[in-house]
Amino acid sequence: MAVYTHVSAEDMATFLQAYNVGTLISAKGIAEGVENSNYLLETTKARFILTLYEKRVNAADLPYFLGLMNHFAQSGLPVPRAVTNLHGDALQNLCGRNACMIDFLSGVSVSDPTALQAHAVGVALAQLRQSSDTFNMARINSMSLPAWQQMATACAPYADDVQPGLRALIDTSLAELAADWPTNLPTSHIHADLFPDNVLFLGNRVSGIIDFYFACRDIAAYDLAVCLNAWGFDADGKTAKAEPMQALQRGYESVQPLGPAEHAALPLLCQGAALRFLLSRLYDWVNTPATAMVTRKDPLAYARRLIWWRAQA
Amino acid sequence: MAVYTHVSAEDMATFLQAYNVGTLISAKGIAEGVENSNYLLETTKARFILTLYEKRVNAADLPYFLGLMNHFAQSGLPVPRAVTNLHGDALQNLCGRNACMIDFLSGVSVSDPTALQAHAVGVALAQLRQSSDTFNMARINSMSLPAWQQMATACAPYADDVQPGLRALIDTSLAELAADWPTNLPTSHIHADLFPDNVLFLGNRVSGIIDFYFACRDIAAYDLAVCLNAWGFDADGKTAKAEPMQALQRGYESVQPLGPAEHAALPLLCQGAALRFLLSRLYDWVNTPATAMVTRKDPLAYARRLIWWRAQA
Repeated sequence: MAVYTHVSAEDMATFLQAYNVGTLISAKGIAEGVENSNYLLETTKARFILTLYEKRVNAADLPYFLGLMNHFAQSGLPVPRAVTNLHGDALQNLCGRNACMIDFLSGVSVSDPTALQAHAVGVALAQLRQSSDTFNMARINSMSLPAWQQMATACAPYADDVQPGLRALIDTSLAELAADWPTNLPTSHIHADLFPDNVLFLGNRVSGIIDFYFACRDIAAYDLAVCLNAWGFDADGKTAKAEPMQALQRGYESVQPLGPAEHAALPLLCQGAALRFLLSRLYDWVNTPATAMVTRKDPLAYARRLIWWRAQA
Repeated sequence: MAVYTHVSAEDMATFLQAYNVGTLISAKGIAEGVENSNYLLETTKARFILTLYEKRVNAADLPYFLGLMNHFAQSGLPVPRAVTNLHGDALQNLCGRNACMIDFLSGVSVSDPTALQAHAVGVALAQLRQSSDTFNMARINSMSLPAWQQMATACAPYADDVQPGLRALIDTSLAELAADWPTNLPTSHIHADLFPDNVLFLGNRVSGIIDFYFACRDIAAYDLAVCLNAWGFDADGKTAKAEPMQALQRGYESVQPLGPAEHAALPLLCQGAALRFLLSRLYDWVNTPATAMVTRKDPLAYARRLIWWRAQA
């Protein structure tokens, strides 16, 4: 939630000369995401988000992320396009960082989504799935089962300091998921992190889907499971909210009905998605230095979701 | 350089209903200033900066700051106007903070001002001085000699840890300034903090003067002294830059020539301005917790300026 790399207006103006986007008239560092430095730029022609990728993003993955965004944008979905410069390149170097300009999209991220908004997100998510069929680049999910196992091992020594019983919850869930994780469900390119702060709304209409920096190819219905976790509970995970949760799935299935195997696996996928965010938050909770300019997110909000899904099983 | 208070899109939309500004279509937390939380809002009618005042701003001073900004805006100067709501109030409560919307102004803050830009700032500063004659609210300078003495006392135990000899530099300078500080120079409302990051440019034209949260009534030429420090050196204070420094003063005097007493006092005022920022940065250097989401500014950049001014005297 900060600007890690300061880019002077002079450097930004020089950077823009390599593009056909007009000249700079405004640049504001914005507190967006947790991984990168972002600026909202306005030129004489349009507005853009300039992202400088900080160390947590693997540079080798950037062509996949930007290619996927462009693929979705060209399919007519409300996804920002990566802007190419006069040489046809979207990825540049700026202040020692990989940097890219994407389209600015209007809309606001809601904190307490309504059922109508959740329905619209379900529709959009299924549209991403269908559109992604014709995208040919590849990226495996770096935050799937093997990563959960690594994070669980790393977090084991202090999990019970965060909350007594947390280690057992993680170990039990992980063992069951590892044993039963489906291997024959349809795959697609998935967003894998479509939380409310990554969706822009104008009223109840999805005007933007952003932050594709966990996108990958994985079980298609796992993306729905991530969304059911992110949109179907209050923020602290204490209350499941039936209306937006059901509306999201209804929206999704209105575009892309789940097959019988997907339906059967969905509760397990939802447990997996809850465990994934529990583990990454728990890992960050302990390993984020106090000096980092980020707000740590509560891992227990996802421990509660995991417990809830296990109680439904 | 951070957003301290998160305002949900829903709360922001509700907040805007008290204004005649249209409905919200975008809201981005921006990394602007060091004291407050700021959002760049776009509505169906216009763009605004929404500021939530954090604890370092004295709420009792806000009517002065906003009144002065409106006074300058009404005088045709490029200063944002504080937007009033349907009840005529500019100051509201939002998420437990005092909050105000001001006009968004285009332009970028330069890091390495040219002589032309410095000249334009000198002109604008003198215009502020002249326009402020007819503004009738009052605020004393909370960062003048008495505050310097308090900060010097607080910093004395560790000044030499930051750099050997710093305590003696502060003590000697402060004693001389306290003995000789002028008491009969013309006063005006002054910005008192018109650094390059508080000025927006479109090319070489000043398109915005922002961040009036140190404004006060004090010696008019002291505002020029602050600017000569802020615009007339490279950032770390190691090199005085004759061209922008002279251009800034030329620009100022092209609008508002200094009187003989002001000319005579200017070198001392410049020492005072250098000491003021040396002390506030030194104080913050030691007293800013590592967890604060701000970038501490180097006090030595102003120790070097102070030494430079003393060498000219």
